[in-house]
Amino acid sequence: MSLIVQKYGGTSVGSVERINAVAARIKTWRDRGDRVVVVVSAMSGETDRLIKLAEQIQRRPNPREMDVLLSTGEQVTIALLSMALANLGCPAKSYTGGQVCIRTDSVYNKARIREIDGVRVEADLDAGNVIVVAGFQGVDDQGNITTLGRGGSDTSAVAMAAALDADECQIYTDVDGVYTTDPRIEPQARKLDRITFDEMLEMASLGSKVLQIRSVEFAGKYKVPLRVLSSFEPGEGTLISFEEKAVEDAVVSGIPCSRHEAKITVLGVPDQPGIAHKILGPISEANIEVDMIVQNITADEATTDFTFTVNRNDYERALELLDTTVQPLAAGKVVSNNRIAKISLVGVGMRSHAGVANKMFATLAREGINIRMISTSEIKISVIVDERYMELGVRALHQAFELHRKEDC
Amino acid sequence: MSLIVQKYGGTSVGSVERINAVAARIKTWRDRGDRVVVVVSAMSGETDRLIKLAEQIQRRPNPREMDVLLSTGEQVTIALLSMALANLGCPAKSYTGGQVCIRTDSVYNKARIREIDGVRVEADLDAGNVIVVAGFQGVDDQGNITTLGRGGSDTSAVAMAAALDADECQIYTDVDGVYTTDPRIEPQARKLDRITFDEMLEMASLGSKVLQIRSVEFAGKYKVPLRVLSSFEPGEGTLISFEEKAVEDAVVSGIPCSRHEAKITVLGVPDQPGIAHKILGPISEANIEVDMIVQNITADEATTDFTFTVNRNDYERALELLDTTVQPLAAGKVVSNNRIAKISLVGVGMRSHAGVANKMFATLAREGINIRMISTSEIKISVIVDERYMELGVRALHQAFELHRKEDC
Repeated sequence: MSLIVQKYGGTSVGSVERINAVAARIKTWRDRGDRVVVVVSAMSGETDRLIKLAEQIQRRPNPREMDVLLSTGEQVTIALLSMALANLGCPAKSYTGGQVCIRTDSVYNKARIREIDGVRVEADLDAGNVIVVAGFQGVDDQGNITTLGRGGSDTSAVAMAAALDADECQIYTDVDGVYTTDPRIEPQARKLDRITFDEMLEMASLGSKVLQIRSVEFAGKYKVPLRVLSSFEPGEGTLISFEEKAVEDAVVSGIPCSRHEAKITVLGVPDQPGIAHKILGPISEANIEVDMIVQNITADEATTDFTFTVNRNDYERALELLDTTVQPLAAGKVVSNNRIAKISLVGVGMRSHAGVANKMFATLAREGINIRMISTSEIKISVIVDERYMELGVRALHQAFELHRKEDC
Repeated sequence: MSLIVQKYGGTSVGSVERINAVAARIKTWRDRGDRVVVVVSAMSGETDRLIKLAEQIQRRPNPREMDVLLSTGEQVTIALLSMALANLGCPAKSYTGGQVCIRTDSVYNKARIREIDGVRVEADLDAGNVIVVAGFQGVDDQGNITTLGRGGSDTSAVAMAAALDADECQIYTDVDGVYTTDPRIEPQARKLDRITFDEMLEMASLGSKVLQIRSVEFAGKYKVPLRVLSSFEPGEGTLISFEEKAVEDAVVSGIPCSRHEAKITVLGVPDQPGIAHKILGPISEANIEVDMIVQNITADEATTDFTFTVNRNDYERALELLDTTVQPLAAGKVVSNNRIAKISLVGVGMRSHAGVANKMFATLAREGINIRMISTSEIKISVIVDERYMELGVRALHQAFELHRKEDC
């Protein structure tokens, strides 16, 4: 008898029919003897409806009240899903974030989970109930309602699984697993049966939208086995596991890519300590996330060219901020480009295999694709290329590293 | 500096525009130095929308989950109203029933309030906030969400006022006060400036829909001065007070009436002890509320005719139940009528004035209206008449007791 935590996203519970379908699926797990805790999101469209209501009243809605408002979305789902389960003869009990004591810090709209008290849930599980928990929400020490930010339901599920020492945390979504790359770009993209946590972390941060990165971090921290699978189709999905792969395994596991990138370069910056901080400080204060950063010494060795990438949505704002930052630095001009894309190779096998980067560069060169920026970590290589070459580059690399072939594991 | 509790119903907060208007009204109270606690209902239409969702899933929705579901309606309103207040520069803080510790019993869908802990609210009031509380909801001792049943927000407001020892509890609604009778029936109906608690209790139970009867009982029990007034128009509304009127005041204060009545008579019931219980027991067990009960000895003195009235919605069901009850009683046949109406006179002045009943009967006789049943209490007389005579009877009585004239008080 296993204890399984399952998470269903907004699309999976987006209508009465889908809620009934999810209930039927949960029942099959329970019928085979498993103890089941379910974490759900708001019905798709509901969160947007609530945000729109708030914005009609206050241009920048009060953060505390926004969380009071948004948390109702998941509360509606837990009630409806519990009814649907009861309707199938499967006793169920709903819990809001506050009722299940998902304790968070007090940072409204993007709170972080501190602890969960699983005691009450365990008693209800022992009594034969399926437990249905509202994802995305918690309470702070003063009992104020908090939310974890978009995608936070994944984190709620992982945190529940950690608190209850669950055997597996299953994230049901609208895709049937993690793919070697985006199947809309490379039709030969293959679903991975398993992937390591480190790889999944890189995939999530590099543009694979399957899992929210914080939930993967959380699962890694608390050693929760995580599985991504489809709400709509049968299948084993992708297991994100702690086991390192055998050495003979594929060197590269996946090729995430993203076109939501923009690149900004400050030319001729005086080469002094603290310059990176001076340029990027105001940008990070404005909550703009900086992704890749490259700094190169120029020919004269007195100045440097400083380049970084941001999300394309933040591009205009970042340029505005630079306008006032760059002047006192006595730097040269700013050049920028928001028609770029990022292609990455991810794989724990890279650790022990040399030449991956070289093979990547050679493959791209063969296709006539110019590399604009490079950034590496132990298990990943990312390159920035012109946006129009993204699909071509992904397909060439997928072919070159033979990702369409099933790995042996 | 007064402490005022205000309650706004679903129509008053039915749209973003109306929520903004309510916020502006609240601000005028606060600007003149009052401390304000606001209790709100769900936006009109929201509760029905949620009920419909639930009924699509479960024909008889699970009561616990129904309360989890419905309580989201008020939670949306408290967040939006708090935002609207903040937008006007009026700091506000929302509280769900659970957060403000509205402790109830565990009877889902129609819980009763046991106690409220006002401490946390008082600290926030002292800090200059308007407190916005979700009406209609509470939590039981185990932390389960409960609701008080339709109209329960009035009760929440009165309970808050009692817990905080408020100077006045103001119920804002879509009428501007309590009228001598239904103005749609008698255009000369007059708004009462004040009415006693006993009178309001009778008015509420006899068909005046202005206030939920439980909230009036609650206010009476905890001596909370209650005022009914319009959300949309200026005015002082009607104050429901504890002061008894002077003797020279009007004898009759109001003429509530109701056409939602049905009458059932069991003829020739053996005149034995316990017969009322045998007839009405199964009916009250089915949660059908019995209103008037009349029992008359027949000519033979061995049997009795037993008549009672129920709400017209419960008429068919009551007749079905009687089918099985009456047979073993060796009673005669059952006759019934669901085309009847009730007209009542209410007034504390009746206590000291004889002849009110007589004047009522004479007035109705003059109009050729036959009285089918009579029931009296210390401050009220109710008669059952054929439905088609209801308007005529109300107008004649309103005239006869000169209710269009302003009382001196």
